[in-house]
Amino acid sequence: MPKKALIILAEGFEEIEALTPIDVLRRAEVEVVIAGLTGKTVRGSHGVRLAADLVLNEYKGEPDALILPGGMPGSANLGQSKEVAGWIKKMADEGKMVAAICAAPALVLAPTGILDGRKATCYPGCERHFPSAVKFTQDRVCVDGNLITSQGPGSAFEFALILAEHLAGREKARTLREGMLVKG
Amino acid sequence: MPKKALIILAEGFEEIEALTPIDVLRRAEVEVVIAGLTGKTVRGSHGVRLAADLVLNEYKGEPDALILPGGMPGSANLGQSKEVAGWIKKMADEGKMVAAICAAPALVLAPTGILDGRKATCYPGCERHFPSAVKFTQDRVCVDGNLITSQGPGSAFEFALILAEHLAGREKARTLREGMLVKG
Repeated sequence: MPKKALIILAEGFEEIEALTPIDVLRRAEVEVVIAGLTGKTVRGSHGVRLAADLVLNEYKGEPDALILPGGMPGSANLGQSKEVAGWIKKMADEGKMVAAICAAPALVLAPTGILDGRKATCYPGCERHFPSAVKFTQDRVCVDGNLITSQGPGSAFEFALILAEHLAGREKARTLREGMLVKG
Repeated sequence: MPKKALIILAEGFEEIEALTPIDVLRRAEVEVVIAGLTGKTVRGSHGVRLAADLVLNEYKGEPDALILPGGMPGSANLGQSKEVAGWIKKMADEGKMVAAICAAPALVLAPTGILDGRKATCYPGCERHFPSAVKFTQDRVCVDGNLITSQGPGSAFEFALILAEHLAGREKARTLREGMLVKG
């Protein structure tokens, strides 16, 4: 059975940070659903308008992973949503994967408390929003059990490949890294 | 005056190869117009539906750069279009930048003859579509005057930053590389 991932896009999402995991995970045969937070058309932080698969409140699935891209004001918009906070807490309570990149670990995950006592990274400087209970790292991608966080657009490919490794296996991720010509 | 870039998306465009240059160049304050080849909504090779700014035949600008992403069948669709071939030849005749990545150098640029006698790269294996007059290189990004070609999704960031360097200056590209946390 292929794994399922839910990615939530709010107005002002960072395009590279959203599209890179979607592209890599769909290549890995993970079923990725793109949910718009407030509508079916969502505008990225650089003006790219993307048609989501559905609006978040229409989604009735049981995903194996929740993915939250960064970007401003995308991350702030995600962070202000009780619906998003509910999804994060539900996924964390069930021990399922919660993944966030750039400003999203600080502005979306941290306020829910799920990072307390856990290791996490974020866009350099955003760690000022981490409560002191979070074990901040400067890794490009940080894996602490079911929590996967990453720094920014330039680490989006590494983030996406780690997600692919966890959701579709190490061999699939290795094949994608080679086939997609990712350096290093 | 900010420079202008035209990116043409056909059904089946590769999402990372399209979105990375759009994102990086808009950050560099290049005016990027996203044109759909046959319609205003275009579906990528991994199912992402993007709203173009306009349909190609509505575009009346004079771009400084033409950008062609890869992906299948996106590159094949671009390669079959006389309108796209016309744009490529016009840009090349005027000495303006023509940039293509992945399968697009082989399936879209090469048939127009503009690569003859010039250095170019492409997705490994696609070089079988290059006429013998093309000086094939295995560089991740190849710059030969106004012609910029690149290998695939994993080199999309390097491709985008080289475009930014040429269209917005070395200093802007360096700042973006640092701010976007691109490795190396």
